[in-house]
Amino acid sequence: MGAMRVLLLAAALLALACSHGATASDPSLLQDFCVADKMSQVRVNGLPCKDPKEVVVEDFFFSGLHVAGNTTNKQGGVVTPVNVAQIGGLNTLGISLVRIDYAPSGLNPPHTHPRSTEILTVIEGCLEVGFVTSNPENKLFTKVLNKGDVFVFPKGLVHYQFNKGAANAVAIAALSSQNPGVITVANAVFGAEPSISGDIIAKAFQVEKNTVESIQAQF
Amino acid sequence: MGAMRVLLLAAALLALACSHGATASDPSLLQDFCVADKMSQVRVNGLPCKDPKEVVVEDFFFSGLHVAGNTTNKQGGVVTPVNVAQIGGLNTLGISLVRIDYAPSGLNPPHTHPRSTEILTVIEGCLEVGFVTSNPENKLFTKVLNKGDVFVFPKGLVHYQFNKGAANAVAIAALSSQNPGVITVANAVFGAEPSISGDIIAKAFQVEKNTVESIQAQF
Amino acid sequence: MGAMRVLLLAAALLALACSHGATASDPSLLQDFCVADKMSQVRVNGLPCKDPKEVVVEDFFFSGLHVAGNTTNKQGGVVTPVNVAQIGGLNTLGISLVRIDYAPSGLNPPHTHPRSTEILTVIEGCLEVGFVTSNPENKLFTKVLNKGDVFVFPKGLVHYQFNKGAANAVAIAALSSQNPGVITVANAVFGAEPSISGDIIAKAFQVEKNTVESIQAQF
Amino acid sequence: MGAMRVLLLAAALLALACSHGATASDPSLLQDFCVADKMSQVRVNGLPCKDPKEVVVEDFFFSGLHVAGNTTNKQGGVVTPVNVAQIGGLNTLGISLVRIDYAPSGLNPPHTHPRSTEILTVIEGCLEVGFVTSNPENKLFTKVLNKGDVFVFPKGLVHYQFNKGAANAVAIAALSSQNPGVITVANAVFGAEPSISGDIIAKAFQVEKNTVESIQAQF
Amino acid sequence: MGAMRVLLLAAALLALACSHGATASDPSLLQDFCVADKMSQVRVNGLPCKDPKEVVVEDFFFSGLHVAGNTTNKQGGVVTPVNVAQIGGLNTLGISLVRIDYAPSGLNPPHTHPRSTEILTVIEGCLEVGFVTSNPENKLFTKVLNKGDVFVFPKGLVHYQFNKGAANAVAIAALSSQNPGVITVANAVFGAEPSISGDIIAKAFQVEKNTVESIQAQF
Amino acid sequence: MGAMRVLLLAAALLALACSHGATASDPSLLQDFCVADKMSQVRVNGLPCKDPKEVVVEDFFFSGLHVAGNTTNKQGGVVTPVNVAQIGGLNTLGISLVRIDYAPSGLNPPHTHPRSTEILTVIEGCLEVGFVTSNPENKLFTKVLNKGDVFVFPKGLVHYQFNKGAANAVAIAALSSQNPGVITVANAVFGAEPSISGDIIAKAFQVEKNTVESIQAQF
Repeated sequence: MGAMRVLLLAAALLALACSHGATASDPSLLQDFCVADKMSQVRVNGLPCKDPKEVVVEDFFFSGLHVAGNTTNKQGGVVTPVNVAQIGGLNTLGISLVRIDYAPSGLNPPHTHPRSTEILTVIEGCLEVGFVTSNPENKLFTKVLNKGDVFVFPKGLVHYQFNKGAANAVAIAALSSQNPGVITVANAVFGAEPSISGDIIAKAFQVEKNTVESIQAQF
Repeated sequence: MGAMRVLLLAAALLALACSHGATASDPSLLQDFCVADKMSQVRVNGLPCKDPKEVVVEDFFFSGLHVAGNTTNKQGGVVTPVNVAQIGGLNTLGISLVRIDYAPSGLNPPHTHPRSTEILTVIEGCLEVGFVTSNPENKLFTKVLNKGDVFVFPKGLVHYQFNKGAANAVAIAALSSQNPGVITVANAVFGAEPSISGDIIAKAFQVEKNTVESIQAQF
Repeated sequence: MGAMRVLLLAAALLALACSHGATASDPSLLQDFCVADKMSQVRVNGLPCKDPKEVVVEDFFFSGLHVAGNTTNKQGGVVTPVNVAQIGGLNTLGISLVRIDYAPSGLNPPHTHPRSTEILTVIEGCLEVGFVTSNPENKLFTKVLNKGDVFVFPKGLVHYQFNKGAANAVAIAALSSQNPGVITVANAVFGAEPSISGDIIAKAFQVEKNTVESIQAQF
Repeated sequence: MGAMRVLLLAAALLALACSHGATASDPSLLQDFCVADKMSQVRVNGLPCKDPKEVVVEDFFFSGLHVAGNTTNKQGGVVTPVNVAQIGGLNTLGISLVRIDYAPSGLNPPHTHPRSTEILTVIEGCLEVGFVTSNPENKLFTKVLNKGDVFVFPKGLVHYQFNKGAANAVAIAALSSQNPGVITVANAVFGAEPSISGDIIAKAFQVEKNTVESIQAQF
Repeated sequence: MGAMRVLLLAAALLALACSHGATASDPSLLQDFCVADKMSQVRVNGLPCKDPKEVVVEDFFFSGLHVAGNTTNKQGGVVTPVNVAQIGGLNTLGISLVRIDYAPSGLNPPHTHPRSTEILTVIEGCLEVGFVTSNPENKLFTKVLNKGDVFVFPKGLVHYQFNKGAANAVAIAALSSQNPGVITVANAVFGAEPSISGDIIAKAFQVEKNTVESIQAQF
Repeated sequence: MGAMRVLLLAAALLALACSHGATASDPSLLQDFCVADKMSQVRVNGLPCKDPKEVVVEDFFFSGLHVAGNTTNKQGGVVTPVNVAQIGGLNTLGISLVRIDYAPSGLNPPHTHPRSTEILTVIEGCLEVGFVTSNPENKLFTKVLNKGDVFVFPKGLVHYQFNKGAANAVAIAALSSQNPGVITVANAVFGAEPSISGDIIAKAFQVEKNTVESIQAQF
């Protein structure tokens, strides 16, 4: 199993890909809360609600964010999501979290959140982080962060984190959506199912088609 | 200087009271970012933006969230805010953070965020947390949290955290607004400037007027 | 039966507590109207819609706002709500009303609307009104209103009205939500079910625990 | 001076036509309040804010809604607006009011609010009210209202009120915008400045061009 | 069958009148997409979603916008809609299209979109277009457009297009809503079902009642 | 000058990168219109408005969308934007357009719009189009489009168009934002200024560092 896939499986829980979720500026709340009813057969923008009389305190609770994730994969990084899929009470509330663990030289590779800004706090270690503005500048803003540093990745922009240190690193990041979504650039382009035509990618990246195919084989 | 005031001074930076700020579902972003221009004389909903050519990486950065706050005050708690007042790049992005330190028996007293949901992670220690639903139920949802536990306080509802443990406790909380605002219930009612009439408070709380006045004297 | 409870029962209809409702800036309308289907078993943010072919003019209608409410309760005030619970056609439309009756010295005690701004018109009598800004200023804005006066209470802030006159007073207030919600401060703190720990309230209000308990006994 | 124009002058204050204002679901609030700074030279979506230190209680206040408007005009109706133009504190808060006076047989002619739902309360008298759905049904919902009756006109739909009674009638209506705007159908089509071509109107209404011109002459 | 009705039947598909749809600024997306489930019995603001596993590429596709509509009707114009009724994948995405065909002297009569701004491109021919601001100015902005010209009609304002040329004209317009709605002024006022009272219309338009009745007979 | 840069220069006008603009669901309109004042020194979310008295019909107008763009560049494609930078009247209105020209085998390479959904109409020729869902599925939805076909690319997802035909192709696309922004994946990752570290990209794409450097040299 490919290394980046491990990271993506975790990230995928974050995304609830193509299914249900939240956004950077979720629609306004119309009652005290609307806890996700995961048994419902009805599908709406976000999730339908449980009967408020059946809501319990555990609907607003998650345990285990102090536990390190397993970073033994090719990217050396893993994302533990805490969004509406893990805490049903987040439905309609427009916010969520992730914990990210990085082995030395571990990477959370370039990606976007289509529905969310991110604000990241370094809990342990040393990270190089960056984001790139949209066309035509594609300006890179990059900084080295240490324990207790906080950094903001504006909504929709490509960004990454890389563990520059010799020790493990840990971050907690908040996202302005109950279901921010993740699009890892390399995976969306080289790992789509079915594959994007090699001719198209070769032209887009100005590389030989066989280079494209060898990259696609990794995903 | 009164004890609760200490907590409030910190919380006040969070609130940017009556001035400028953000909300639980901020208006949508109309460009990659709109970093707050703190020199501007113009006042708008939120803050005007810097010239994007003058934006630097530090506009998205804050340092020091690993440093414990000083809890030597009557409530035994202190809030360190990281919102648009501290990180100008958060303007228009709809999210912010706080670090909260609690001495043993320290309290973050009952309050609301008029413009934000909160998702709190316990970094150290043991907290009793709770929120109360709106009228007429006024149902209390309460839980004891330990390290690594995450809890959600829905937007606009009265909530609190109390350090049940013998040791210090620390939490990091994310809020769905660049400027969530804080209304500490006791302060808004008993500590307003000028004071709310004692007759009104006495009737509202069904207590003697001199009890009201002795409480007001604390604030 | 406690006096404040009477006011709250009326207010509660306003809140549709923790159940279904609206907000200060409701999500945008996606069709001409979406009249609440009160028979539906489905729960969503707000309410599901009736078949538009079954919508009748009465779905947009309410009768009786000229009828005085019964103010014979401890607070001497009563709220008659006209929101999505009374007019199903308000679903998705982002506005509602209340009529408030005040006996002489009657009080609508300090409360917030978590999802709504309020604009109040005095129909009869003389009211002292006020609202308090968020931390740290907690500045009180207060004014005496007479017949034909209009006053605005910004979204989420603590506010109250008190009948200063010797005669009954009546107001009509509009709220920027189909289900604005009401949090009466005294009830949320001293009347929560189950109770908030007396130790916590005592510390928050800087009073003796037995004072807290005697207040809690009123609710 | 034409009769409908009198009604329109009042209504125009409501509209702040093409200038500054609010909407049915105004952008979210980013601070406790953003009182309109009417001296500012800066123009934004809505209005720029006053320095919060200079905000006074009168910024949230309007007086005189109990005073009858002058209905001696061709339509026999007059609108007294209370929106962000009258109460600067309504800026960013998403709500406003009007008082409407109707002489016997007085009419508030068919119009839309492009940015607002309306909820109307009859204070005195007897009104026939109606609204029409969008194409292709163009279904009329109509009802006779008496004192204390409340009725909802959904956002953007054509609606009217007509005084059926022998006495004056009065209503207070709330609108889900700080600046809802008014488009009186007859005026927009027959009274535009400069005029819409008579050929176009004749074709649209399937009438002779000289009929169009005689109607245009009234406006 | 009346001529304007033909145009309206097409426009009606655009409106999904009073039923289901979208808006100029639809509520934010909470997942990658929420393709309309047209088999669902549940009604919500917008439409419920299909199971994402059953979504196919055709859900994002429509064919035939190059085909001219039939303009043989009294107005000499016809609208071909491409909104959420035609492309289920547009649900929650806040945008749609129309193709408009105009015979020589063909007219798209004065109308509003209650939930949408419109941006129109002339593909062929020559159009006079106009929109009218709200009260009290009712200012007409008008321009003659030729092939390749683009024009904007702001949300909620009355607007029209008229084919000034000797040849057919074609435009494609985009609307900022999945279901913008159409209110043709003449139809809403003179063609409502049931009819608006002739007395009311006569007073609103300052014409004789029998003129009103002869216009109503056309619709 | 690199080939993709030509396409990007055009696209960049679309993006108004990091400067001023609009979004997929722009904040609600607070007046009839707020035409961008391009002379203003004030910067806000979006753009400040011109004095409405100085607004002219040309503020809502653009000419030349029938003119083919120059596709003689490496990608064989060019984007002609029509957004708030070209039509100041689009400010606050939440919609814009582009014309896209494709030489045979011309490509609009994989990119996202961080603030917009796109709905594309083929005017001439034959295009293969596709979009990829977010993690973990990264499912490709792809289709061959011909003249008159319409296709939707949901907000924030990676998508592309490729001219499969032997002739030129032309499309007009509408976007749900006054300033949708464009992030061309290859440019954001391989063409950022300054460059993203080769080590990071090599790890993200699972390629040799010298392969990364040879790709970076193209941008």
